[in-house]
Amino acid sequence: MQEEIIYHVDYNTLELNNPVMIVGLPGVGHVGKLVADHLVEALNAEKIVDVYSEHFPPQVMVKEDSTVELVGNRLYLAKTDKTDLLILAGDSQSTDPAGHYRLCDIYLDFASEFKVNRIFTLGGYPTGVMADENYVIGAVNNVKLIDDLKEKGIQFNPSEPPGGIVGASGLILSLAKFRNIDAACLMGTTTGYIADPKSSKTLLGKLCDILDVEVNMDALDEKIKDMDQIVEKIKDSVVGEDGDEYYEQAPASDEDLVYFG
Amino acid sequence: MQEEIIYHVDYNTLELNNPVMIVGLPGVGHVGKLVADHLVEALNAEKIVDVYSEHFPPQVMVKEDSTVELVGNRLYLAKTDKTDLLILAGDSQSTDPAGHYRLCDIYLDFASEFKVNRIFTLGGYPTGVMADENYVIGAVNNVKLIDDLKEKGIQFNPSEPPGGIVGASGLILSLAKFRNIDAACLMGTTTGYIADPKSSKTLLGKLCDILDVEVNMDALDEKIKDMDQIVEKIKDSVVGEDGDEYYEQAPASDEDLVYFG
Amino acid sequence: MQEEIIYHVDYNTLELNNPVMIVGLPGVGHVGKLVADHLVEALNAEKIVDVYSEHFPPQVMVKEDSTVELVGNRLYLAKTDKTDLLILAGDSQSTDPAGHYRLCDIYLDFASEFKVNRIFTLGGYPTGVMADENYVIGAVNNVKLIDDLKEKGIQFNPSEPPGGIVGASGLILSLAKFRNIDAACLMGTTTGYIADPKSSKTLLGKLCDILDVEVNMDALDEKIKDMDQIVEKIKDSVVGEDGDEYYEQAPASDEDLVYFG
Amino acid sequence: MQEEIIYHVDYNTLELNNPVMIVGLPGVGHVGKLVADHLVEALNAEKIVDVYSEHFPPQVMVKEDSTVELVGNRLYLAKTDKTDLLILAGDSQSTDPAGHYRLCDIYLDFASEFKVNRIFTLGGYPTGVMADENYVIGAVNNVKLIDDLKEKGIQFNPSEPPGGIVGASGLILSLAKFRNIDAACLMGTTTGYIADPKSSKTLLGKLCDILDVEVNMDALDEKIKDMDQIVEKIKDSVVGEDGDEYYEQAPASDEDLVYFG
Repeated sequence: MQEEIIYHVDYNTLELNNPVMIVGLPGVGHVGKLVADHLVEALNAEKIVDVYSEHFPPQVMVKEDSTVELVGNRLYLAKTDKTDLLILAGDSQSTDPAGHYRLCDIYLDFASEFKVNRIFTLGGYPTGVMADENYVIGAVNNVKLIDDLKEKGIQFNPSEPPGGIVGASGLILSLAKFRNIDAACLMGTTTGYIADPKSSKTLLGKLCDILDVEVNMDALDEKIKDMDQIVEKIKDSVVGEDGDEYYEQAPASDEDLVYFG
Repeated sequence: MQEEIIYHVDYNTLELNNPVMIVGLPGVGHVGKLVADHLVEALNAEKIVDVYSEHFPPQVMVKEDSTVELVGNRLYLAKTDKTDLLILAGDSQSTDPAGHYRLCDIYLDFASEFKVNRIFTLGGYPTGVMADENYVIGAVNNVKLIDDLKEKGIQFNPSEPPGGIVGASGLILSLAKFRNIDAACLMGTTTGYIADPKSSKTLLGKLCDILDVEVNMDALDEKIKDMDQIVEKIKDSVVGEDGDEYYEQAPASDEDLVYFG
Repeated sequence: MQEEIIYHVDYNTLELNNPVMIVGLPGVGHVGKLVADHLVEALNAEKIVDVYSEHFPPQVMVKEDSTVELVGNRLYLAKTDKTDLLILAGDSQSTDPAGHYRLCDIYLDFASEFKVNRIFTLGGYPTGVMADENYVIGAVNNVKLIDDLKEKGIQFNPSEPPGGIVGASGLILSLAKFRNIDAACLMGTTTGYIADPKSSKTLLGKLCDILDVEVNMDALDEKIKDMDQIVEKIKDSVVGEDGDEYYEQAPASDEDLVYFG
Repeated sequence: MQEEIIYHVDYNTLELNNPVMIVGLPGVGHVGKLVADHLVEALNAEKIVDVYSEHFPPQVMVKEDSTVELVGNRLYLAKTDKTDLLILAGDSQSTDPAGHYRLCDIYLDFASEFKVNRIFTLGGYPTGVMADENYVIGAVNNVKLIDDLKEKGIQFNPSEPPGGIVGASGLILSLAKFRNIDAACLMGTTTGYIADPKSSKTLLGKLCDILDVEVNMDALDEKIKDMDQIVEKIKDSVVGEDGDEYYEQAPASDEDLVYFG
């Protein structure tokens, strides 16, 4: 197997209202992944495509009911008043450089097939420092997108991030340009060291504003509380030296927060 | 060469009685490998397929008679009263992620060709701690398999192992689902640091019970004794500081026990 | 996508005057890259081909105007009195060994299509020591090229560099020989630890002399000053211990000088 | 380019007398490479095939006359009274596992095309200790070869080397078996830390005896002297602490001896 793409709907007959694609895959601080996963749950989105590939790790996850699920990415559909959201979420990015290019081409095939008007890729922007406030910076594949996004509070700083954007979030922007699809990358600032649901909430807020969609954020608030406790324990452990024990327990409590940059 | 698959029987004419596939390849604690290798010897199984692939290490092993044997995997057939066992055993897993997917597809071609009803993949479940007792946990690709396995003493814990299953043991389950073949992964608990024939014996006991097959365990008991001595020497060496010397000698005495996680 | 080659001119109809190809890609001390980038700017060269490939890192750079640019290489055309220069410049070399061979074949397709008479690949020659003076050593794919280059001050030392030449600079010479295109590699001596615009200036001086082309060097002089300040600060920081702080700031000031060997 | 195979003779018309293939590529202690390179020089062998491949490093070597030579392997022909030797020598083995398989298949195509009766692959057998005497151990792809080799003093120890044989030396044996060509691997014992022309001389002596060929060993004796001096200097440097300086100079003096295991 090279790739196994399983469609659960027929894109030829599916009628979508102003379709927009949202991409939130694992990455810096899992900021983008947490937003996409939250959107899928909060909007009760329907899974419409499964993507498996030999470019993903050779690994299965075990579900609550002890059945296995092959590592892969998934495209979901959430219908809202103003727009139909095609949300790409999943477990992994490519394990090798060439795979990134090939998988992003597959994701853009979805964008073409479902005739999306615009793509938003979501990610984290590592600052290296703990900050009370976080914000969202943007990059685009078409300069015309900037003004509207600025109005919604997205920051655009010249040539930032200085090292560019690595992985699907950036690649999709450039490859979408080859297909004449407008795309923006929205990055929530984060330390880069741990999963950051707080940054995800800020990012989700901006995204909802841009899309004119309302989303219940309770589950994300829950994750923020969990993460605050984890950080608190880590701080304690530096003093109390029970840090090792803590790390052992953390993953079991909430798998979505398992991220160490 | 990409792959070289050599059949020693013709699967079109071979008549099998309730064929079941057992997969025991190198992995955590070599728990699965030791079971498969033991089954091949104890049941005097016949080699029916050789699998060579450029995804295996570019390496040959040297046999007792100084002839070389290319690193590869092998499918064996052992006929028993209740069921015919197709045992996949071998020297290595893929050296690269994509190779895992491709090799597992080849193994499942065997399952299709020989019309197996069910697949059991065998592995180790690393706990990180030395334990007097070990047990077997399971994961499946069809929830219907669980009740029968539970009755035989296989434990099913929600979402366990937490990190999923890496390599052929897990991948075969998911890829078998694409072909509508029921498959379960049985994992013997083990430290994850050294080869563990004791865990293999527990796993083999459960497997025999599930398959209603009787297998002489003497050779495995022998390996357990060898390993106990090795562990004893390692413990001594920490005190006596002759540990280095020991490691030098160990591989020669019993190659099957050479495993350091 | 494997490769995406976008021509902005038609090589079948383009009439070139004595075309020579100059290759300056990232490498030791960025000596070659700095020369090629400078030539493009100073000669106001026109971009005629874009090269994208899955062998490049899966990464985009963000431009001044916050639009993204996919990592790739670019072929430029600069018309001068005596010769038309086809300058290959870019962001990266291949991430994998095989990719180097494939990309260099693509670059040589350009050489064939645009009917270049000669290729000069530019690189750095790491000496490991800081030196007041730097010079240019050469290697060729045709011994007939040596005398003319020696006359221009290029040094040829037997079997130097002792470890050979790694990457596109060397590979292009050998692969060009398969196509009967004469090619020389010119390497400016450099420490190998940091970007070295001073070495680039020496190299550019020799190249201009060989090509009988005049190029304004002001921008390169500016980079030399910047780099001198950076080195000065690094030296200070060893004493003043504010080095870490410094490194954080450096990349932002002039991205072309970000190179640590 | 994937592979570039350049024949300088036509194997359809070339008449060979009892052709035997000798393979001596870089590896443990460069023991095999030093023998093959010496045979080429001492027997004044003619180069009949060039092999280039993207599985080799993307690198060129610079020759005495400052022209470059692409990293690759070469097949040479040396005619002797009793047998015509096809000697495979070269700069590198594959950079990736799959490449080993593909390149060895190419080498065996030569064996088929030139109708060789037997293949000898040459390598080093790392013992980890300095020894006054060295010897040659063997492995074969056909048990019938052993008796004759034993008579010539090749040692055959059960299952030795314990870790098998990695790379072309072993792979060629197994892949040759698929083509029904008899092949033996002869390994000179060596420390595994440095190039070992002394082990090469022992190995060459045995090989000449097996092939009934006489070869002048002066150049190899020269290398042994050089290496003895290098080792002497290294020992001194441990006392005198001028070791670093020494290492800097060594490579330049005799490139064939540059090997650090």
